[in-house]
Amino acid sequence: MTATTPLPTPHTPIGRIPVLAVQPVIEGGRGPTKAVVGEAVPIRATVFREGHDAVAATAVLTRPDGTDHSWVRMSGPTPGLDIFEAHVTPDAEGTWTFRVEGWSDPYGTWSHDAEIKIRAGVDVDLMLEEGARLLDAAAERDGLDESAVRALQDAVWGLRNDSQTPAQRLAAGRSAAVQAALAAAPLREFVSPSASYPLVVHRERALVGSWYEIFPRSEGAWQDETGRWHSGTLRTATERLPQIAGMGFDVIYLTPIHPIGTTFRKGKNNTLTTVEGDPGSPYAIGAPEGGHDAIHPDLGTFDDFDFFVARARELGMEVALDIALQCSPDHPWVQEHPEWFTIRADGTIAYAENPPKKYQDIYPLNFDKDPEGIYVAIRDMLEVWVEHGVTAFRVDNPHTKPLDFWERILTEFHEKHPEVVFLSEAFTRPAMMHTLGMVGFHQSYTYFTWRINKHELGAYFKELAGDWASVMRPSLWPTTHDILTPYMQQGGTAAFAIRAVLAATGAPTWGIYAGYELVENVPRPGAEEQVDNEKYEFKRREWDRAEHIGIARLLQMLNAIRKEHPALQRLRNVTVHHTSDDATLCFSRHLDAKHSPTGKADTVVVVVNLDPYTTREGVVYLDRAALGLAAPEPGEYLQFTVRDEMTGETHTWGEQPFVRLNPHVQCAHIMTIEGR
Amino acid sequence: MTATTPLPTPHTPIGRIPVLAVQPVIEGGRGPTKAVVGEAVPIRATVFREGHDAVAATAVLTRPDGTDHSWVRMSGPTPGLDIFEAHVTPDAEGTWTFRVEGWSDPYGTWSHDAEIKIRAGVDVDLMLEEGARLLDAAAERDGLDESAVRALQDAVWGLRNDSQTPAQRLAAGRSAAVQAALAAAPLREFVSPSASYPLVVHRERALVGSWYEIFPRSEGAWQDETGRWHSGTLRTATERLPQIAGMGFDVIYLTPIHPIGTTFRKGKNNTLTTVEGDPGSPYAIGAPEGGHDAIHPDLGTFDDFDFFVARARELGMEVALDIALQCSPDHPWVQEHPEWFTIRADGTIAYAENPPKKYQDIYPLNFDKDPEGIYVAIRDMLEVWVEHGVTAFRVDNPHTKPLDFWERILTEFHEKHPEVVFLSEAFTRPAMMHTLGMVGFHQSYTYFTWRINKHELGAYFKELAGDWASVMRPSLWPTTHDILTPYMQQGGTAAFAIRAVLAATGAPTWGIYAGYELVENVPRPGAEEQVDNEKYEFKRREWDRAEHIGIARLLQMLNAIRKEHPALQRLRNVTVHHTSDDATLCFSRHLDAKHSPTGKADTVVVVVNLDPYTTREGVVYLDRAALGLAAPEPGEYLQFTVRDEMTGETHTWGEQPFVRLNPHVQCAHIMTIEGR
Repeated sequence: MTATTPLPTPHTPIGRIPVLAVQPVIEGGRGPTKAVVGEAVPIRATVFREGHDAVAATAVLTRPDGTDHSWVRMSGPTPGLDIFEAHVTPDAEGTWTFRVEGWSDPYGTWSHDAEIKIRAGVDVDLMLEEGARLLDAAAERDGLDESAVRALQDAVWGLRNDSQTPAQRLAAGRSAAVQAALAAAPLREFVSPSASYPLVVHRERALVGSWYEIFPRSEGAWQDETGRWHSGTLRTATERLPQIAGMGFDVIYLTPIHPIGTTFRKGKNNTLTTVEGDPGSPYAIGAPEGGHDAIHPDLGTFDDFDFFVARARELGMEVALDIALQCSPDHPWVQEHPEWFTIRADGTIAYAENPPKKYQDIYPLNFDKDPEGIYVAIRDMLEVWVEHGVTAFRVDNPHTKPLDFWERILTEFHEKHPEVVFLSEAFTRPAMMHTLGMVGFHQSYTYFTWRINKHELGAYFKELAGDWASVMRPSLWPTTHDILTPYMQQGGTAAFAIRAVLAATGAPTWGIYAGYELVENVPRPGAEEQVDNEKYEFKRREWDRAEHIGIARLLQMLNAIRKEHPALQRLRNVTVHHTSDDATLCFSRHLDAKHSPTGKADTVVVVVNLDPYTTREGVVYLDRAALGLAAPEPGEYLQFTVRDEMTGETHTWGEQPFVRLNPHVQCAHIMTIEGR
Repeated sequence: MTATTPLPTPHTPIGRIPVLAVQPVIEGGRGPTKAVVGEAVPIRATVFREGHDAVAATAVLTRPDGTDHSWVRMSGPTPGLDIFEAHVTPDAEGTWTFRVEGWSDPYGTWSHDAEIKIRAGVDVDLMLEEGARLLDAAAERDGLDESAVRALQDAVWGLRNDSQTPAQRLAAGRSAAVQAALAAAPLREFVSPSASYPLVVHRERALVGSWYEIFPRSEGAWQDETGRWHSGTLRTATERLPQIAGMGFDVIYLTPIHPIGTTFRKGKNNTLTTVEGDPGSPYAIGAPEGGHDAIHPDLGTFDDFDFFVARARELGMEVALDIALQCSPDHPWVQEHPEWFTIRADGTIAYAENPPKKYQDIYPLNFDKDPEGIYVAIRDMLEVWVEHGVTAFRVDNPHTKPLDFWERILTEFHEKHPEVVFLSEAFTRPAMMHTLGMVGFHQSYTYFTWRINKHELGAYFKELAGDWASVMRPSLWPTTHDILTPYMQQGGTAAFAIRAVLAATGAPTWGIYAGYELVENVPRPGAEEQVDNEKYEFKRREWDRAEHIGIARLLQMLNAIRKEHPALQRLRNVTVHHTSDDATLCFSRHLDAKHSPTGKADTVVVVVNLDPYTTREGVVYLDRAALGLAAPEPGEYLQFTVRDEMTGETHTWGEQPFVRLNPHVQCAHIMTIEGR
């Protein structure tokens, strides 16, 4: 029996100015909110007070060393709901904290009451004198700069200047100079802080990236005249890197590169029998040559691996390695540590099962048998790869291992190697997917792959960008080596184009599995994955054909647009717009100038024809405010110029543009607003 | 500047079996969840684990002394959402706690896998032997009763009995006796407790009650031949108590009974000038005769008050006093403690204002000037009334006083006088209304009074019974001395009947303002309150007329039905049913036998015609499961007998009964299901 220490629930007195429902807070502050360096994080809280006096709130961001980094006066309250909001932007990695301070705003109270009462002729002299006293006291505070003191003193003089009309005197107390002085140094009373909540700040790659997946043994594999295959190597795989980097990808992800077991090895197309030369699944890890910390002899040596990593870096890419924490029956751990596996009543080691199905080529680790021993072994194994330059791990099926194991190891790596990004490959129920994020995974595969129609996609993009964006960063993949949906099987080249556009713009991280450029869309009969899947065999591809199909050019274009536009590098900034056509999806990503790393506003409007077969047309009903556009003057119409980043064409749009997209010619518009 | 101590956010490791999103938890455990003695509280949590093994959860309720009171295995998980649920029922007052324990269920895992594998002929002997070993270990545990040990040992023998078929041997391991033994003493592994969360348990009156409001000076007031009014007294008011008790009310609530100021006293109908004999508003508290701890000389003495309280108790009623924390300019505190008020720049004390309006008869206390002095004075004043038998306070406008004041005083009273109930009269925004509940108010007035149509009422009843039910207990009032909505002004007797039915059945606490029986529905022109409001004058009512109008009889009937039916004494158990007619509202309250204080299931279905003018008819689409009714056999139709508690008639209903209600004859059905 194990037990966590229950979270203490000390009674905290309510503040003089109550601050409640602070967001984004994960499980009452148990898990940290996630952000990357330079990302504006929206902070919200319910802040209110008794009676009618003015209330205000400040969002305070605190550095990892405990010093305050920034104070932002929050906008609000939303009428009726008392919600205040502000964005805070951390500028370095580490574990930051944030809090919300509610406070009484005596100047706001006076300004509001004075305007009403002086206009109504009630208590006129009294209100002006009270304003003068308030600003006089405000001017006496320490630490004000000279211009602020002067502005406040001028206002005091103006409020008391009875040669002026009451309206003029009031105006002196509410001048722009006074507002500016008090904005810089607000008069705050009864400052009531919330708890401080954790905000973990990662490097940008934890949020933003373009991944490209390969089976390294396929890159350079060749068949001799006898039909026998020769494995590609890390050296031959290196030769393909310039092509991948040329398409704009910045993470090269390798499926497992370890020795592969022979016991119950799977044959081509997942058959239970093999023939001579079948290389086996790289997910059946471990052989006499070694386990998770070894390299398959066919692929090369650690020197070759170092060469691969160095070349990737030269090309601006980092290397992600697939970690599948399971063993073939031939894994060294089976001999050395039989106690790490489940022993059946007959003394045998338990295979992986999904009753009544058995996976006899895989022994799952039993993390409860020797948690410490297994932990140390896995940690040391990961360290080997980090030493050799791996900066990201794609973790296979993390949802079949205990959450407390993940929390411990991710916490240790976050402390020792904060640069290393962990991607969770868990296609399962929301509680597990979110909690894997909460315990430390930087990114997660998502259900994007199965969200096909307009309603599903719109709702899912909003879900990913909503409350859970602070816990689970999505990675969007149109296909993987395990997944080829019916839509992709049937929709031809257009389907591959459509899903690439959606993945590249629907979230800041996306990924492509090798062969996407070739529209590899033939499934193994009865399965939703590729026929002749390279999990079980070598695959040599005619990359030259890709140029002809045009998908490679599209991928390159999409990555270029992503790099150019900071709005596409953020998660929480999505708006889905109404469209008249059921197969036309429109969404936008917008960054205000003050939340944009470039200091300039950026807006991208994506319109996609989701129907891979036919031309669709219809009206898009844009949410103007979500695009950061000002309302037109009464009687005027809004007009603005959009540039299609895919074609370079410009168009004049109003708030309800008409669009028409032929999926065989151009499946989407990726519009940016000109003159930004 | 004041500051609360921020809540610490220690990092709590995730459990081996994660337990997240425990409900009902208020602000991460900051505020307690509310319940009354004998109330079944629904506990929910998200509990899940890695892989496919079985997971289970237990809700644990812990007494105020820290000992465990009960363990309930939670039902669940809801497919896909991993939510478990159970009800726990505290049986005494005090501050209890609850927690959720997630655990691994090895028997559940074995039972699930064994069934599938043995049916498929996979690992048959192995699975049977593993079951035998599991139950053998289960039988070895300490503390099992003899019959459980025997059941488990029999199962072990049966699983190993190879003279039987595998199916028979499996059945031995999954027998009812085994299930019962393991239900009583589950095999739990990796037990992972959540935090413990507070559950404050009050006496039943905090949730359930029928209140009746009077201005005691009106009860027995009389006019002499010169037209001069003579105040009613506490003694004459006592004479009306039998009539009120006879209608089934159990709380008699008195508007303020203190000396009334004369400075800026308001005249009849809220005029700014008075004439000789105008008694003034009892909310303008304080005069040379005394303040909040004194009794108006016209009403009598503390002896008279004691007499009133004693008589009320004899009649089964308790006494609630109105507490309005504000002062007339003549209040003794104004002389003794001018520092408790806001001093303007001209040296005067600030009146109450809502700029540009002024309320010159009222000085608000400024709680920030001498918080400690004001706190002690108010606490001591409340103690006076508690000493004289007051067990409930109706607090006027609590949302104009600081929340931290309320939290402190309500906490102190909860400790010293846990029987005293505080009712919050705050008609304001949700954050304030909920937070007043969170800091300790037992009950709250609600927006029921302004929810008129079917959609509004259905949504509001669901809101009151939803998440916020653990924080804010509603009190439903059709009218008050301050509120007479247009619906009540215009709808005649039928409107008064309709709203009484809704208030009496829409929540466990409701209240009526004196004169309701007489359908007093004439407003002061331009205001939504009574003309000739007894706030400003004496009001003698012809109570005999009430008998003729019939509302008194209705109130009596409603209170009798409420007392008879425990389902009407609970808050969270409401279901709103679809109806075909837009003015016909149907809702039900249901208690399962195991959650009912009587040990019997209880179901009340209320159907109300909301239109006070015309007969309405239509179909009610009952949610069968919400009424606790079993589904009919295929091909059968559900039929059950309902009894109309308002008429005594019985009807046969199916799942979609037709109803027709003439508001001038019978505005509602209050149906109970017979044969329960």
